[in-house]
Amino acid sequence: MLARTCLALAIALAALPSLADEAKTPTPKELLAKATPAEWRTPDPQNLVYMDLPQGRVVIELAQEWSPLHAANIRTLIREHYFDGTQVIRVQDNFVTQWGDPDGDDKKKAKSLGTAKETLAPEFTRKDGKAYPFTKLPDGDVYAAEVGFSDGFPVARDGQGEAWITHCYGTVGVARDTGAETGNGSSLYAIIGQAPRNLDRNLAVAGKVIKGMEILSAYPRGGEPMGFYDKPAQRVTISSVRLAADVPEAQRTPIQVLRTDSKTFAALVEAKRNRRDAFYTRPAGKIDLCNINVPVRDPSKKS
Amino acid sequence: MLARTCLALAIALAALPSLADEAKTPTPKELLAKATPAEWRTPDPQNLVYMDLPQGRVVIELAQEWSPLHAANIRTLIREHYFDGTQVIRVQDNFVTQWGDPDGDDKKKAKSLGTAKETLAPEFTRKDGKAYPFTKLPDGDVYAAEVGFSDGFPVARDGQGEAWITHCYGTVGVARDTGAETGNGSSLYAIIGQAPRNLDRNLAVAGKVIKGMEILSAYPRGGEPMGFYDKPAQRVTISSVRLAADVPEAQRTPIQVLRTDSKTFAALVEAKRNRRDAFYTRPAGKIDLCNINVPVRDPSKKS
Repeated sequence: MLARTCLALAIALAALPSLADEAKTPTPKELLAKATPAEWRTPDPQNLVYMDLPQGRVVIELAQEWSPLHAANIRTLIREHYFDGTQVIRVQDNFVTQWGDPDGDDKKKAKSLGTAKETLAPEFTRKDGKAYPFTKLPDGDVYAAEVGFSDGFPVARDGQGEAWITHCYGTVGVARDTGAETGNGSSLYAIIGQAPRNLDRNLAVAGKVIKGMEILSAYPRGGEPMGFYDKPAQRVTISSVRLAADVPEAQRTPIQVLRTDSKTFAALVEAKRNRRDAFYTRPAGKIDLCNINVPVRDPSKKS
Repeated sequence: MLARTCLALAIALAALPSLADEAKTPTPKELLAKATPAEWRTPDPQNLVYMDLPQGRVVIELAQEWSPLHAANIRTLIREHYFDGTQVIRVQDNFVTQWGDPDGDDKKKAKSLGTAKETLAPEFTRKDGKAYPFTKLPDGDVYAAEVGFSDGFPVARDGQGEAWITHCYGTVGVARDTGAETGNGSSLYAIIGQAPRNLDRNLAVAGKVIKGMEILSAYPRGGEPMGFYDKPAQRVTISSVRLAADVPEAQRTPIQVLRTDSKTFAALVEAKRNRRDAFYTRPAGKIDLCNINVPVRDPSKKS
């Protein structure tokens, strides 16, 4: 009901713009249609990860500027084909989907990390946070002094110079043992529920899923504590993980991300803060950091 | 890695409490073990809905006090077996799972609502919000003047007397057409992602999933716009929906909910705000309304 009728209405309004209420907030589609080519960026293929699963491809953008040691180690693991044949080992509802070597905790059975490092200096925050681009959001945050976006990543700042990528839906983090230096990128997790912001500053963020979240979020939840699967057969096997840079250009997944310092992005944020149309009669007037999706597009299908 | 080792550690610490660091935050399990019987409430079976799906049972508590007209209409629909054979029609990633009559928008094919009403006065907020129990959270909110819990439901207040149940993970809302009065409870949705708080005050909240969210959140996302399934075969059929009150007592799902005005609930909130243990070294010191889970238990399995 809700949705089908609204969709029909949206189509009708789009077809007959002269009938649209002047007070109606533009839709994301309308705003994106007006974005200029310069407002879209093409991620560096050195930072783009293709993870192929039976259900399709997940594309992750590595946060090279925020966790360079982790990005480098993950690249090494990818290039040595560490991840090929690893599995989705844990899906905890409203929290995370985690993948890696199911025997990673057993030193005798664990897959070799090859030339990748076993431990890394923690990169949980940046002390030089002010050096990073920052497009601030207007409505504040429960957890941090200020929040906004930095080159597509959701970011928080403490007001004293420290900054970090926040755990929002789609954020990819580095699983680790209790020791802060034990995360090496061989096991990663993606956030699949309400942003668990209490993870912020306690784990390194490796990057963000920019395509394919609907694959990672829909796996059956595991029956063991913390969502581990009780039976090995429940684990989904990752067929391959590749860096876009290592894939012939013609075979890459075409993808562009809307710049978060662009006018169109600002307009999208404003439209979501104050959505007003035939359906939404009481705009929130506010927006939370993790409620904002950064649009991506397939540039070969420009509409 | 992360999780298994922590779990082992948690078990070890629990077994040897004298070795535990005094500064360690108690775990939810430790806090719940100390809850008194009076801190648990048994939901009124008139407000408890059992929705049976091929993957298991979803239990919803109706928000009788907040949307009595909708609760009454939903009870009528249930008692006349309206929902039996209806389907999950839409799963939109990071947003909602919606169920109802797939032909509900087609007047010629739509299932009869029986004696239930086709339209209802909107119950999007309560103007007499101050009359409701309210346990306030300490850290504020991006969207509303104050937030907290009321008899288990996450609630926001505008500081001027109006209050409403918020759209958090697991909140069940009443799908509707563009007209504010067109929601009648025959199609409902559950939130399966980051809390879409911009829905607050624009839709009636019918209640909250208190068991079985992991079923509703793991369905494949639909391929049509807004997550509608492209093929009828993708829809999951609901075998039956019953009120607990109409089920013989011996066949009911035993369930109790921790009182949100209890000392144990306050201690759980505080432990999550300031989690500090071998793994979490930088407590957030804050907590967002929709990051708090209200514990439920099976009273027949008291631990």
